[in-house]
Amino acid sequence: MNFNNLDKTLAFDDLRKLGRVSLRNNLTARRISTYSAVAGADLTYNYAAMPVNNEIIDKLQELCDEQELVEKYIELLSGEMMNPGEKRLVLHHLTRGNCTGKKVIADGEDKEEFYKGELEKIKDFSEKVRSGKIKGSTGKKIDTVCQIGIGGSDLGPRALYLALKGWAAGEKVKQLRAEFISNVDPDDAAGVLRAIDPEKTLFILVSKSGTTLETLTNQMLVTKSLRGVDPAKHLVAVTSKTSPLASSKDVLTSFFIDDYIGGRYSSTSAVGAVILSLAFGFETFASLLEGAHEADNNALNGDIRKNAAMMDAAIGVYLRNVLGCRETAILPYSQALCRFPAHLQQLDMESNGKHVSRNGEKVDYETGPVVFGESGTNGQHSFYQLLHQGTDMIPMQFIGFRNSQYGFDTQVEGSTSQKKLNANLAAQIVAFALGRDNENPNKQFDGERCSSLLYADRLTPKTLGALLSHYENKVMFQGFLWNLNSFDQEGVQLGKVLAKKVLAGCEGDDVLKAYADILI
Amino acid sequence: MNFNNLDKTLAFDDLRKLGRVSLRNNLTARRISTYSAVAGADLTYNYAAMPVNNEIIDKLQELCDEQELVEKYIELLSGEMMNPGEKRLVLHHLTRGNCTGKKVIADGEDKEEFYKGELEKIKDFSEKVRSGKIKGSTGKKIDTVCQIGIGGSDLGPRALYLALKGWAAGEKVKQLRAEFISNVDPDDAAGVLRAIDPEKTLFILVSKSGTTLETLTNQMLVTKSLRGVDPAKHLVAVTSKTSPLASSKDVLTSFFIDDYIGGRYSSTSAVGAVILSLAFGFETFASLLEGAHEADNNALNGDIRKNAAMMDAAIGVYLRNVLGCRETAILPYSQALCRFPAHLQQLDMESNGKHVSRNGEKVDYETGPVVFGESGTNGQHSFYQLLHQGTDMIPMQFIGFRNSQYGFDTQVEGSTSQKKLNANLAAQIVAFALGRDNENPNKQFDGERCSSLLYADRLTPKTLGALLSHYENKVMFQGFLWNLNSFDQEGVQLGKVLAKKVLAGCEGDDVLKAYADILI
Repeated sequence: MNFNNLDKTLAFDDLRKLGRVSLRNNLTARRISTYSAVAGADLTYNYAAMPVNNEIIDKLQELCDEQELVEKYIELLSGEMMNPGEKRLVLHHLTRGNCTGKKVIADGEDKEEFYKGELEKIKDFSEKVRSGKIKGSTGKKIDTVCQIGIGGSDLGPRALYLALKGWAAGEKVKQLRAEFISNVDPDDAAGVLRAIDPEKTLFILVSKSGTTLETLTNQMLVTKSLRGVDPAKHLVAVTSKTSPLASSKDVLTSFFIDDYIGGRYSSTSAVGAVILSLAFGFETFASLLEGAHEADNNALNGDIRKNAAMMDAAIGVYLRNVLGCRETAILPYSQALCRFPAHLQQLDMESNGKHVSRNGEKVDYETGPVVFGESGTNGQHSFYQLLHQGTDMIPMQFIGFRNSQYGFDTQVEGSTSQKKLNANLAAQIVAFALGRDNENPNKQFDGERCSSLLYADRLTPKTLGALLSHYENKVMFQGFLWNLNSFDQEGVQLGKVLAKKVLAGCEGDDVLKAYADILI
Repeated sequence: MNFNNLDKTLAFDDLRKLGRVSLRNNLTARRISTYSAVAGADLTYNYAAMPVNNEIIDKLQELCDEQELVEKYIELLSGEMMNPGEKRLVLHHLTRGNCTGKKVIADGEDKEEFYKGELEKIKDFSEKVRSGKIKGSTGKKIDTVCQIGIGGSDLGPRALYLALKGWAAGEKVKQLRAEFISNVDPDDAAGVLRAIDPEKTLFILVSKSGTTLETLTNQMLVTKSLRGVDPAKHLVAVTSKTSPLASSKDVLTSFFIDDYIGGRYSSTSAVGAVILSLAFGFETFASLLEGAHEADNNALNGDIRKNAAMMDAAIGVYLRNVLGCRETAILPYSQALCRFPAHLQQLDMESNGKHVSRNGEKVDYETGPVVFGESGTNGQHSFYQLLHQGTDMIPMQFIGFRNSQYGFDTQVEGSTSQKKLNANLAAQIVAFALGRDNENPNKQFDGERCSSLLYADRLTPKTLGALLSHYENKVMFQGFLWNLNSFDQEGVQLGKVLAKKVLAGCEGDDVLKAYADILI
């Protein structure tokens, strides 16, 4: 396996020499029907409005080959130590199936069996809670589940929960309400606790180490507020086998995760499984895993034109390192995905927001972009002004679905809301790409603002699984292209150290103390 | 009045020649105690961790003088036509008080009296609903209010509502629950309608023209769902006097707005007043106005060191046009402000994301940055990795409060959650600015990552008003510095035109049709 920096590859040098592609000159109906790659499940990635052509794509294929993207992915799937900084395997794919058929043994156990075993425990537990076999300590049925966790224990599961609420309502799947407490700001817990009935609520404490400050503090706040119920009967843990929470008498039961799945990749582990199985039933979660597994398998395809995650990753690197774009806007035309951009923000920026290669040397090129976004059409009435007429070009990724989740709609002026929604999506892609000339510069649209489109028939659990996996694999492939370790996060450490110093009285650090004096 | 481009000023030329300021060499406790400007109410802006020094600040003062920031602000306050593209006055400041004492006459009326008159109507109406004098059509008390609006009719009011919920709970102020329907995606309305009792809900339809597609479509969806109640008794309008909604029999009553307040600046007009007065009482909203008015008055100060909005604006331009920064991260350490960055995203990016000067010519420099953000400490566990160790420098703006809203807290390991929250805030500013050297490049923090801090004692309605105004005035001043019209939004028009074309069958446009075929 070669671990070379991007700027040491032959293909990258060539890419920089190729001519630029004008969308105004090239975007045609034919291109829209052919510039398309399967992502998995029924999810498709269309890159017709990206500034690439066959010559550039061929070169991107060479780059992916040279950087051994599929080979590295197979190594990762096979249990090689692909997080060298933390000396860990990277096993989140294994939570949704085995793509290689190989056994992965670590910590003296078969990891596939371990993840499956936890899923079985979660299936059993969630069914008992949903059917009312397991009740609260005062004998009431549980109708609310509340996740206490931060970062990956919060953003992914929250985004997925919101993404499936409407689908479950449309399908008449029984739902438990889910709430989330994440911030160490005590107002976060206070707000959630005010809105729930503790007798009918089950709390899920998520902390791999069992020592995350925010999470443990929020556990204390919750416990303090639980008057009249037995906290131990209303709390389960998702933690590692070796954490103090694993065998604590303070929890009803524990579900296990391990060191080989980072927080931002943990939605398909017990971190997401417990709350989503409780909220929507285990079958729903299993269907999400199935969609993710399909997309994981698709990402093994060495042909960039048949591998959406690879194409998306390679085009992203082209935009970043050849065209100099610094941001990516994620624009789902689906209210259900309203918090999905926040999850992707963590996934992408925490994975590839790095200045050091996996070999431990400073890189000489730009890496992960700033990721932001809101659901459309809301964004159109907000920040799209800058996307259309601002002085920088911001690449966009649209997400759309032919059908709504609830199936509740009405005709106004001859069209349904769903049709209006997607008419806007189509219109925006074209407006950004082609623009429109006007002799009044204030009404001039230069066009050449590129975007891609991920689309499917409807946002179901399976499609959502594929969507989640698409982005995880895209980020992984970009990490390989940039030669980064996408699975550690050393950049969050210094802040933690200094926060402890402030809590200890600043230890003679004048600058820290000056800020603490203002704020505390 | 001079309307010159930034690059035509003498001060800008000089600024580019001045040396760079190293935070590692300059950030001291003394600097933290002096690099501070009043914003209004008890809100303070601290810029000690920004890469400026007295020499640069003096030059920024010259730049603000040369671009006549205060003079232009006074013109605007006095009712001059400061939105020349749409030939409109810009009067949002007048909704919260008269800063100049001058009468502003337009459309044949005294505008201050007009806004005050609407406020009186809103006071009266909201008191009647809250006391139960006005009930739903089936005789039940209203306990939920639901705003139907998009863009500025949604983002600002929603952010302010969420910002005040915890304060109201802490103060035991009676609350009506507020919900928002914005997206044309029918799943948005379906989700909200599922969660409310129509007999106890009052809907507020917000559309200046009375013709906003998303909003009218959502009105239809809502009306369709209101079985068993008289829709006209459950719907009020916020609209212009000339709109079809103004005298509609479909609404219980109407509150008026005019053309002189753009959507993104409308939170202190009836657009925010109706829902916030219903949710928290008119006195709460009046207090928010008071805070905003204080900050508006403060922004009149010609001394940049005493005018937080001007300092913030000028430093932002320095970062953008001298140091080449393209983004601003807004990081409130307050869960109550969780959607405030989304409001600022619209406010800033829609106002200044432009490539044409107010004189109608293409500018030769970069304008408004990408604005994004999430609440801390959540962001620390998400995208801060990139902020600390990514390859671009992203300026940050932190927001903090000494005290929580609810007052619900507990000691864990010797400190409250509120103290932990602010210890983290202080730690992050210092970690970003000073970094820390390590012989392992993966653990190296270069520092020199700049941030500013807006802080106050507690997030009250008055402080929130000042915070809102601070950003509005900052954006306005930046528009003056860049010589933009910050009050139009021509960039959103083309997408609207093309969406209509899709709904009409694409009118022979092959490219549009190819996307429509995929999506519809």
